[in-house]
Amino acid sequence: MDAANDAYGDLEGRFRRIANVQGALAVLHWDSAVNMPSGGAAARADQISTLSLTAHELITAPRMADLLDAAEANAQAGDDPWVQANLAEMRRLWRHASAVPARLVEAMSKAAHESEMVWREARAANDWASLQPRIETLLALVREQAAAKAEAFGLDPYDALLDEYEPGGRAARIDVLFADLETYLPELLGRVLDAQGRRGEARLPAGPFPIAAQRGLCEQLMQALGFDAAHGRLDISHHPFTGGVPDDVRITTRYTEDDFARSLMGTIHETGHALYERGLPMAWRNQPVGNARGMVLHESQSLLMEMQACRSPEFITFAAPLMRAAFAGEGADWQADNLLRLYQRVSPGLIRVDADEVTYPSHVILRYGLERRLVAGDMAVADLPDAWRQGMKRLLGVTVADDADGVMQDVHWPSGAFGYFPTYTLGAIAAAQLFAAAKAANPGLLPAIAKGDFAPLLAWVRTHVHSQGSLGTTDEILTRATGAPLGVAAYKAHLEARYLG
Amino acid sequence: MDAANDAYGDLEGRFRRIANVQGALAVLHWDSAVNMPSGGAAARADQISTLSLTAHELITAPRMADLLDAAEANAQAGDDPWVQANLAEMRRLWRHASAVPARLVEAMSKAAHESEMVWREARAANDWASLQPRIETLLALVREQAAAKAEAFGLDPYDALLDEYEPGGRAARIDVLFADLETYLPELLGRVLDAQGRRGEARLPAGPFPIAAQRGLCEQLMQALGFDAAHGRLDISHHPFTGGVPDDVRITTRYTEDDFARSLMGTIHETGHALYERGLPMAWRNQPVGNARGMVLHESQSLLMEMQACRSPEFITFAAPLMRAAFAGEGADWQADNLLRLYQRVSPGLIRVDADEVTYPSHVILRYGLERRLVAGDMAVADLPDAWRQGMKRLLGVTVADDADGVMQDVHWPSGAFGYFPTYTLGAIAAAQLFAAAKAANPGLLPAIAKGDFAPLLAWVRTHVHSQGSLGTTDEILTRATGAPLGVAAYKAHLEARYLG
Repeated sequence: MDAANDAYGDLEGRFRRIANVQGALAVLHWDSAVNMPSGGAAARADQISTLSLTAHELITAPRMADLLDAAEANAQAGDDPWVQANLAEMRRLWRHASAVPARLVEAMSKAAHESEMVWREARAANDWASLQPRIETLLALVREQAAAKAEAFGLDPYDALLDEYEPGGRAARIDVLFADLETYLPELLGRVLDAQGRRGEARLPAGPFPIAAQRGLCEQLMQALGFDAAHGRLDISHHPFTGGVPDDVRITTRYTEDDFARSLMGTIHETGHALYERGLPMAWRNQPVGNARGMVLHESQSLLMEMQACRSPEFITFAAPLMRAAFAGEGADWQADNLLRLYQRVSPGLIRVDADEVTYPSHVILRYGLERRLVAGDMAVADLPDAWRQGMKRLLGVTVADDADGVMQDVHWPSGAFGYFPTYTLGAIAAAQLFAAAKAANPGLLPAIAKGDFAPLLAWVRTHVHSQGSLGTTDEILTRATGAPLGVAAYKAHLEARYLG
Repeated sequence: MDAANDAYGDLEGRFRRIANVQGALAVLHWDSAVNMPSGGAAARADQISTLSLTAHELITAPRMADLLDAAEANAQAGDDPWVQANLAEMRRLWRHASAVPARLVEAMSKAAHESEMVWREARAANDWASLQPRIETLLALVREQAAAKAEAFGLDPYDALLDEYEPGGRAARIDVLFADLETYLPELLGRVLDAQGRRGEARLPAGPFPIAAQRGLCEQLMQALGFDAAHGRLDISHHPFTGGVPDDVRITTRYTEDDFARSLMGTIHETGHALYERGLPMAWRNQPVGNARGMVLHESQSLLMEMQACRSPEFITFAAPLMRAAFAGEGADWQADNLLRLYQRVSPGLIRVDADEVTYPSHVILRYGLERRLVAGDMAVADLPDAWRQGMKRLLGVTVADDADGVMQDVHWPSGAFGYFPTYTLGAIAAAQLFAAAKAANPGLLPAIAKGDFAPLLAWVRTHVHSQGSLGTTDEILTRATGAPLGVAAYKAHLEARYLG
């Protein structure tokens, strides 16, 4: 029993140290995107590489296997469930790290960095030919990594990659959910576009929209949603993201003077991520069980805010006067009915990050199908551009004019992230399920939002999602919160109510 | 020979990794002062503590003693002097690190960070009582560290601390230089104030001075001095400083709308530091010999710009039209003769960072005397505020109204930096000596500055100081550059020429 405590206590100390190194890495990554002058890139790459190596060495230290064995051997059925879950997460993280030899970690990191650099130029120049060999090199290493992890976890290679982003996520489950949506969505889209046609056109109010005013409005809405300025910041970066650590969450957005809706909804999306991080259990800061459960619940929290709460008529009731005040807006384009049509507009397009919630899943389903075949070795990288064109035609009826707005639009594959894409749509499904449960538990929730009061919504997700950390699987957390594991019923009901109602 | 190469090569790899951890720490420190919300302080303290421990473990790794012994045993008289100096620096850094147990390093880092956070509030609230126990805790750790290093180096404890900031610096040498100034300066000050009275009053042009305009002017002058925006940034912090790494130098300043001279000269000061960092030898990036020699030469580079070059009539000739343009300044107050009087105004005051170059050394001499007694255990922290008041009265004839503008004005002690203060005045002495040598070598140097051309000055310091890194001691670098080791002759000559001439 003492030995057990010693081993587990030793592990807690080691994982605390690893978390601090990862926290430092999060600041370096944020700074790279927000502040760093171009001439600092080489030094920063060296710093990041050194700290990544340090974290890897700490988690794969020779003593770790014995400590995990000893702590597990001495675990009791009656132990604190948080301690049990923490130990299980420690084992999972150790398995991921120790499955892959240091040589492969380094080769992956180098190939991913080089490929991402080439991607930036290649996308701008619409030059797939220069990117293809980089993706081929990287994919070979990803497949090697997937095989090593598949062996260590006893999983299919794709599932072994997926498990890094969504612990416990399995392709067999995703196949069922996505097959359902693949049949359902095209038929829905037709009906949605018909209904939208009858409802009248959404008009973007005339700009320009000064960036200082956009920023002020973003900060106002962040605060309304519950973002605590003593524990985070809003800055500008080329690709919006949420970084930092739970008690100092750094979110970013980007502004263009000809549109304010994009920065606003982008900021609300990142605020949803930030609230999750900040609401993780205080008692388990810097321990694995204190981390966000995975990318599905993470995306559910951003989409709960962006799509469920903040494209509702109630939100527009609250926000329309603020928008008018920020931009001195007058006339019909600034009325709530037009703004609601604007925020709920559906339109099949080429670009995933610009997609509405009806067409977004098709972008994900395309990528998921392609990356599964790539990882399985059933498809050559050279065949990607054509497969992309065919998929976009089939799923969304749109014609891909060039690879820059086709297969090269996302950073994920060029940066080595295979197995990440499905979490976007799984997160959208989870968001609908959680929001439905929150509304059922508190019928005053949406009326409160109409008054700018997000406290009831925040209280519900704090209790049922944020404070749960990694105590249980995504399905276990969803079941405790909503009575059921992940399923598409609430998502379909939401789309039909919003877009056909 | 092969073994020697192996040992030395191994050491270079290890010190490169240490430098990367220290580079990451520099970013974390900069972020703490510039961006971090208050609620992030505890997490940041943990990150900094973990990385400090990592750096300490790397430098005190069990293999290091053997590697240093082997590399030294195999060194040849004919080896590249940079390699010899690099190895000597490695040994010095190893001695500093291995003298102190890891437990103490971690405790120091955490206590210093927490004390600095308390200082920020305490200074603002003029609340010495809340700061005093933090300083007591920290000083106890500093004295423990000083004793351990004194033992390892065979030095007096204060010298052992000083050696971290100024390698080879010794209190016995400082005592002689400071005793000279302590006799010389009060008598000089009287004559300077007389001469100043005869010269007519310096009038601060009427404000307010918009912060955006101040910032624009700061950036204009940074660029003129040679600061490369692709390799650094200017931001705002409460206590101006230079941080980051040589290829990404982060400098800060602070603005008030009622005065522009302060932000401007502060920015020029930090630009001098930044130019030194950026000019360190490219071939030795991330190696000990590639570091700045010490804080005396570092301060000499900031004061060379701020005091020697940029309070000269030639600089005012160049800068006065820019100042008028920035603030739409008109009339006699904006003419070069008044601005020169303003920039050369001597006035005994309470605040070190606002002091002119005639009274500045007295601020340092006070702090040096107090910190020597604190480190020796001859004085209690509780007695500091009164001793401060008495010292300011005796040395400068000024009355300290409150502790915020007295003993709490500087971040040094609250952040654990004891042994640092004397380097400011030693740097001022070195700056005068270097500037005199640069002018003698290039009589066109000051006329070029009158045209806004700092290239001749920058070329001289790049060659004679920056590019020298840590190749030799401060005195060796000064002797190569000026023909003599550090001495007060040029400093006295400079003060007399400028203020009595």
